[in-house]
Formats: sequence, C-alpha cells, structure tokens
Amino acid sequence: MEKLIYTGKAKQMWSTDDENILRVVYMDQATALNGKKKDQIEGKGHVNNEISTLIFEYLAKNAIPTHFIKKISSTEELVKKVKIFPLEFVTRNIAAGHFATRFGVEEGLAFKKPVEETYYKSDELDDPFMNESQALALEIATETELQSIWQISRKVNVLLTKLFEKAGMQLVDFKLEFGCLTDGTIVLADEFSPDNCRLWDLTTKKHMDKDVYRRELGDITSVYEEVLRRLRNELAKEVQ
Amino acid sequence: MEKLIYTGKAKQMWSTDDENILRVVYMDQATALNGKKKDQIEGKGHVNNEISTLIFEYLAKNAIPTHFIKKISSTEELVKKVKIFPLEFVTRNIAAGHFATRFGVEEGLAFKKPVEETYYKSDELDDPFMNESQALALEIATETELQSIWQISRKVNVLLTKLFEKAGMQLVDFKLEFGCLTDGTIVLADEFSPDNCRLWDLTTKKHMDKDVYRRELGDITSVYEEVLRRLRNELAKEVQ
Ligand SMILES: Nc1ncnc2c1ncn2[C@@H]1O[C@H](COP(=O)(O)OP(=O)(O)OP(=O)(O)O)[C@@H](O)[C@H]1O
Ligand SMILES: Nc1ncnc2c1ncn2[C@@H]1O[C@H](COP(=O)(O)OP(=O)(O)OP(=O)(O)O)[C@@H](O)[C@H]1O
Ligand SMILES: [Mg+2]
Ligand SMILES: [Mg+2]
Repeated sequence: MEKLIYTGKAKQMWSTDDENILRVVYMDQATALNGKKKDQIEGKGHVNNEISTLIFEYLAKNAIPTHFIKKISSTEELVKKVKIFPLEFVTRNIAAGHFATRFGVEEGLAFKKPVEETYYKSDELDDPFMNESQALALEIATETELQSIWQISRKVNVLLTKLFEKAGMQLVDFKLEFGCLTDGTIVLADEFSPDNCRLWDLTTKKHMDKDVYRRELGDITSVYEEVLRRLRNELAKEVQ
Repeated sequence: MEKLIYTGKAKQMWSTDDENILRVVYMDQATALNGKKKDQIEGKGHVNNEISTLIFEYLAKNAIPTHFIKKISSTEELVKKVKIFPLEFVTRNIAAGHFATRFGVEEGLAFKKPVEETYYKSDELDDPFMNESQALALEIATETELQSIWQISRKVNVLLTKLFEKAGMQLVDFKLEFGCLTDGTIVLADEFSPDNCRLWDLTTKKHMDKDVYRRELGDITSVYEEVLRRLRNELAKEVQ
C-alpha cells in the first residue's frame, strides 16, 4: 500500500512496494517567501517533472551520482529513498536575489570563483544561512561529507553552466539537496528546475525562473515551458 | 595637530604627530542592537581601557602580533594605525546569544571544536553574517589573509580560554578585528573587553559581560570591574 510520506511546497513523496524507492508527485503549486506567498499554477508540476528528468538524466550520464530512477508519468517519477542532509547547498555564479540585497551589490555582478553557501533546512527557524563551521559544530554533517557534497556540486555547476549556455541561458545560481543511500553513498537528490535555480536569457537577460513568480513578471508556466523547449533542443543535438 | 578621525559606538580614534600612530579614547558609552539601545555609563571607558590593555599585553607576551603600543591615561591608549579588514571574526566555544536563537539550541551547549564566523562590518547593511566564500568573492580579503587571521584567532582563543579559566571565568565567545600595518603585516587590532566577548562565572554561570547591559541584568560597570579585578589577580600570580 502506497502511503503519503510528505507534502512539501512543490512535491509529494509517496512510499512504494519497495522500501528503498519513493514516488515523487510534482504539484501545480508555487510558493515564495518561505510559503507566505502561495498559488496554484496549472501545468507547473508537469513542466518541472520534465525539466528535472532531463537534467538528472544528463547528470547521471556525466558520472554524477543521483537518486533518480525514472519518470513514470507526466507529473511523477521514481527515486531512490535517501536520508536527506538537512542542508540546502547553494552555488552562485552571478550575484542576484538575497545575495545582492544582503551585501549591497548589483544584481549581475559575475564572481571570479562561484560563491558557495549552505542553509539549514528548518521551517521553524526560517532556513537560516549557516557556515561550515556551524554545520560541523551542530553535527549536521561531517567534514568528509561536506567535502564530497561540494565536490559533486562543483561538477554539477560546470556541467550545467555549459549545458544552459548552449541552450541560450545563463545559470546564475542554484540550490541542490543531497542524501545518503542505505549503503552510505552520497547522491544528489530532490529536483533541478527553474524553481531552485536562476536562469537568465543569454542576450536579453530576461528572467526564466521562479523570479517571474516572486516578482510577478508574467506567466510562470509559459516561461518554464520555454526553458524545457530550449533544453530539449540542445539535448537532442548532443545525442546526434 | 591631533584630529578626530572616527567616533564609534565605544571609542574615538585620534590622529597623532606620528602618522602611523593613533590615540584611542575609550568612552563612557554602551550600545546594543546595532546602536538602537544607547546609554552613558560612568566608568566604563576606564575599565575597558584597563582590561583591553592587560589582554593585549598578555597576548603580545605570548607572541600574538597586535596594534597595541601602550596605555597613556586612564581612558586612553596609543596603537599602531592599521588598515582594518571590514570583517568581525567571531569565535564561539559555547552556544549563546544569536547563535542559540538562530539555530534553536540551548545557551550553554559546549562545542567540541570552536565555531568560527565572520560578519561584514557595514552599518547600512546591519553587519551581515558572511561565509568565507562570500568574503573571497567580494574581494574583502584573500584566502591567505583569512587563513593567517584564523590562525592568530585560534591561538588567542587557546591563550585567553586558559587565562580566563584561571581567573574563574568561562570564555564563551568573542569578536576580534584585524588590520594590516603599512608593511603588510597582519595584526590584532581594536579592543578585547567584556563589550566584545561573553564571560560566565565558572561556578555560578553569572553573566560578566555586555549581556548585563543588553538584558538589563544589573550594573555593568561594577561587573566589568570584577572582571578587571580577577584578571589583575591572576596576571599578578603569573608574573611571580
Ligand atoms: N530521494 C529522496 N528521498 C527522501 N526525501 C527526498 C528525496 N528527494 C527529496 N526529498 C525531500 O522531499 C521533499 C520534497 O518536497 P518539496 O520540494 O515540495 O519540499 P519543500 O516544500 O521544498 O520543503 P523542504 O523545506 O522540506 O525542502 C523535501 O523535503 C526533500 O528534501
Ligand atoms: N589600530 C587601528 N587602526 C585603525 N582603526 C582601528 C584600529 N583599531 C580599531 N580600529 C577601528 O576604530 C573603530 C573603533 O571604534 P568603535 O569600536 O567605537 O567602533 P564601532 O562603533 O564598534 O564601529 P565599527 O562598526 O566601525 O566597528 C572601529 O571602526 C575599529 O575597526
Ligand atoms: Mg523543495
Ligand atoms: Mg567596536
């Protein structure tokens, strides 16, 4: 019997007959400001499932260990169940959003070396920014685990920066989550979609990510569909 | 002609005849909440000057490079002028204050390894917490500089934890500032007083620092004088 394990802000996680496998359902919902802004958005679940599937398959092909098994419907996929590290791993290639306001710099400033940040996943505490020394002191992860995770994150950044660039988009920043399989292997988990990254059109700098929703710049689903179309085109070329 | 260069929340910095030397005046003023709470406190300037002098002399004797030259009056000292890194370097041995509320842990939790944090010194931005990768990206310091600074900070922590313990106090946490001399040498600057650290009585856990002011627990000057008395006694023993 399948059981609903968790309803998040964008996805539901269901158990399956196999205790090591979860079914993810991408929902037609968008939230911002840690859930304070919330809307139903038709078609968003589908398009995010499609984009995340393309990205996770691309990463797996390029030797990145992931939780992804397969897409099973327009809004669902199967993934390996992991023990999630309660940390969000953010990489920034270009200053935007919180970074820009927090430190008083212009959106668009390109970093010579990507900025790496961790946030403690805790709704009550409002996902506080946390440095490595704090994560170690609170025993949220070990130094070795953090090193492995950042090593994978950096590879993901190199791979996806190139991929999006070829597809006409700048990968400004993104958030990853990681978890451990039962045997202890660390794998990339959760999703990769315009909900958890910033993408700017390479030439017009148009926002092609959740900032369209946060800043009310237009219709989010059609923007995400444009991202999906560009990615599909590019990946089709790569296969040839 | 001496000129007032800077009036901060606790000290004034004056130029001297020697362009490489500043005169520091410790003021009878306490502030909290980034200046929102502010009071005149008789005797505070004097006691902080005395404590900071004892600490800086003790550190210098133990091979820590500092800006300190000498105390010249009850509330004044001479220091080498430095180019201050616009960062506050915080070390925590025990959870307290912001750390405890931010991460939802009890005040008093002792860390196996000290927690190290940097804050960007910027009044407009409200001194935001910043990790190393952000400091490097914003070119606030180089990796080598940060390494040297943390190396010195760690030595300071070992030396002062022992000293305060012998004087009957727990060094819970503290904030340091560093700067560069004209020849590029990195030295410990600013002050070390109960304004910038947390001290708990070893047995009663009584607050013996600025939390007495922040939390309105009693008369701050008499508490600081008790810290000074204990330090003096301990240092007098060490000399013998
Ligand atoms: N392979 C996996 N195994 C177990 N849990 C996972 C896996 N992949 C992702 N998760 C977790 O499942 C949830 C996905 O739901 P969603 O993304 O909607 O959550 P959310 O609203 O972002 O909330 P949260 O703050 O918990 O991340 C997240 O908590 C995520 O950490
Ligand atoms: N040796 C030094 N040379 C130059 N500046 C110094 C030196 N030591 C300390 N300073 C700076 O002098 C000022 C001391 O004043 P005070 O401690 O009252 O400032 P503050 O109110 O804490 O404000 P700030 O946010 O600037 O630290 C600080 O800005 C400090 O960084
Ligand atoms: Mg999520
Ligand atoms: Mg100060």
